[in-house]
Amino acid sequence: MKARTYAIIGTGALGGFYGALLARHGTETHFLAHSDYAHIRRHGLRIDSSWGSFNLPKVHVWKHPRDMPRCDVVAVALKTTRNDLLPRILPHVLADEGVVLILQNGLGVEDEVARIVGPNRVMGGLCFLCSNKVGPGHIRHLDYGTIALADYDPKGRPMGITPRMKLIGADLKTAGIPVQLSRDLILARWKKLVWNIPYNGLSVALRATTDKLMAHPPTRELVCDIMREVVRGAAAEGRRIPRSFVRKMLDDTDRMPPYLTSMRIDYDHHRPMELGAIFGNPLRRTRAAGVELPLIDMLYRQLCFLDYANTRLPKSNSRRMAARVRAKS
Amino acid sequence: MKARTYAIIGTGALGGFYGALLARHGTETHFLAHSDYAHIRRHGLRIDSSWGSFNLPKVHVWKHPRDMPRCDVVAVALKTTRNDLLPRILPHVLADEGVVLILQNGLGVEDEVARIVGPNRVMGGLCFLCSNKVGPGHIRHLDYGTIALADYDPKGRPMGITPRMKLIGADLKTAGIPVQLSRDLILARWKKLVWNIPYNGLSVALRATTDKLMAHPPTRELVCDIMREVVRGAAAEGRRIPRSFVRKMLDDTDRMPPYLTSMRIDYDHHRPMELGAIFGNPLRRTRAAGVELPLIDMLYRQLCFLDYANTRLPKSNSRRMAARVRAKS
Repeated sequence: MKARTYAIIGTGALGGFYGALLARHGTETHFLAHSDYAHIRRHGLRIDSSWGSFNLPKVHVWKHPRDMPRCDVVAVALKTTRNDLLPRILPHVLADEGVVLILQNGLGVEDEVARIVGPNRVMGGLCFLCSNKVGPGHIRHLDYGTIALADYDPKGRPMGITPRMKLIGADLKTAGIPVQLSRDLILARWKKLVWNIPYNGLSVALRATTDKLMAHPPTRELVCDIMREVVRGAAAEGRRIPRSFVRKMLDDTDRMPPYLTSMRIDYDHHRPMELGAIFGNPLRRTRAAGVELPLIDMLYRQLCFLDYANTRLPKSNSRRMAARVRAKS
Repeated sequence: MKARTYAIIGTGALGGFYGALLARHGTETHFLAHSDYAHIRRHGLRIDSSWGSFNLPKVHVWKHPRDMPRCDVVAVALKTTRNDLLPRILPHVLADEGVVLILQNGLGVEDEVARIVGPNRVMGGLCFLCSNKVGPGHIRHLDYGTIALADYDPKGRPMGITPRMKLIGADLKTAGIPVQLSRDLILARWKKLVWNIPYNGLSVALRATTDKLMAHPPTRELVCDIMREVVRGAAAEGRRIPRSFVRKMLDDTDRMPPYLTSMRIDYDHHRPMELGAIFGNPLRRTRAAGVELPLIDMLYRQLCFLDYANTRLPKSNSRRMAARVRAKS
């Protein structure tokens, strides 16, 4: 049997890290890079990690998807805000019997990709990873790293543990990546949202790290109320998340060092936030099932404004602005 | 008949302005000042105003309420966040037959004051004023200035136009202040909240001036939804605010130049925000009537965190913080 080949779409903090691990362990791995292309072509990838730091001086890196070889597994590691690019990438890169592995946050991305490549060529991969890109082709892995694989069904049914999940899981494990196999993609995605929705959203709306949110009892309560709404959202799609899971998310976060969420990092860098996948899609689907999530809806609407003001409006010197505008009592 | 004497509790942007107008037109007016006491004692008050600028080189200014003469009208022009001081001020300053005129924002402050001075010695005065304190004893009046007087009933019933409202209204008019007489204090206060709740709250939560909020259609819609919740809050207390009033608030705001709300100015100066009077009391009273206001409740909870982080937590250099904390994907 021929070894599977991998394409990494987006060679950043996540794709660069996982792709480098695969390549290092001998898997044929092709990286699509944009801004870092020239640097990676010349210098390869550099990974700083508590799991062991390493350099890959030479990697298969590509600037244009049309030049890439077709791969068996195409791992999408872009921000979901760039998914408009996928229709121009995936058809060039995916082998006929291949599968697209969605390593992104949020809900409903697999459906988008299924519309491009067909419903039988999509799989979800939920990443529990802390890593940063600290320079071109240079990734710092901080903590965690598990990928939870879950296969996709266009009707949203649990697919159980499929043979291809096991094969891809084995490749990842060989590369040193901890893997979980999840029977139900939708449940796995909603469970991840239990953390992502409150902490990503409030870290931006309230300009705070996780520890600050948790240290203020009424805000801790708000986090908890938002988590309970996510649980109600999951229930609207027939998925039961036990109360103990909410408690575990709170406890886990208490034990974390102060975190800047990925959404907050995007916001601070004036990049678009992943609002559609993490907020918009869950709200839309839940509403279609006749369930309202008012706290999450309000937070989403606020984040939409902050995103617009942060990426569209000219950056104003707030001191100058304060002098210009009038005070309203 | 002896002319009424006035005490101004809090000689800032609002109390300094209205008090100076009264004093200038010959009304005996006593100012209680704190940080600006020495300056005002030496230099008096200076008012820059489109209605006509003027100096009052000599005013009756006091540092301690116990030294002040008892006055017929005691106008409270402190921020509501300093109302903890009122039990130590009002009993010294209020004449036996006098009335406390609450020139503050929000709901329920008259009830607090009634507990100090008795229910028959309280009146509401709603100020529609744009002014800033630009230096010690130096106030810049920018726009508007009407005071709507409304008499207080401990059971919340409309009191109609009372004789003492007419007398005080006449004093204010003589001093050049536009006056309205309102039959129903509770209705007047809820109507003011239709503007204050969305714009004060969102200007802080979304770090934006009114024009920016209005320019983004989904956020304009959010403003409008919050206004409708205020209308539902008023209805919970038996007050009907017509739909046309919400439209008028939106239209009026569209015509305003970019405004920094008073809450935003407090936030930017790391002062406590007037959350209890503007958010907490309306929510508490509405809930007691069995009505939930979920958007306003969420906004209130967020503002409570922002207030806490802004006034209690050590100011952190966000760049330093970003370097220290880890990124969470």
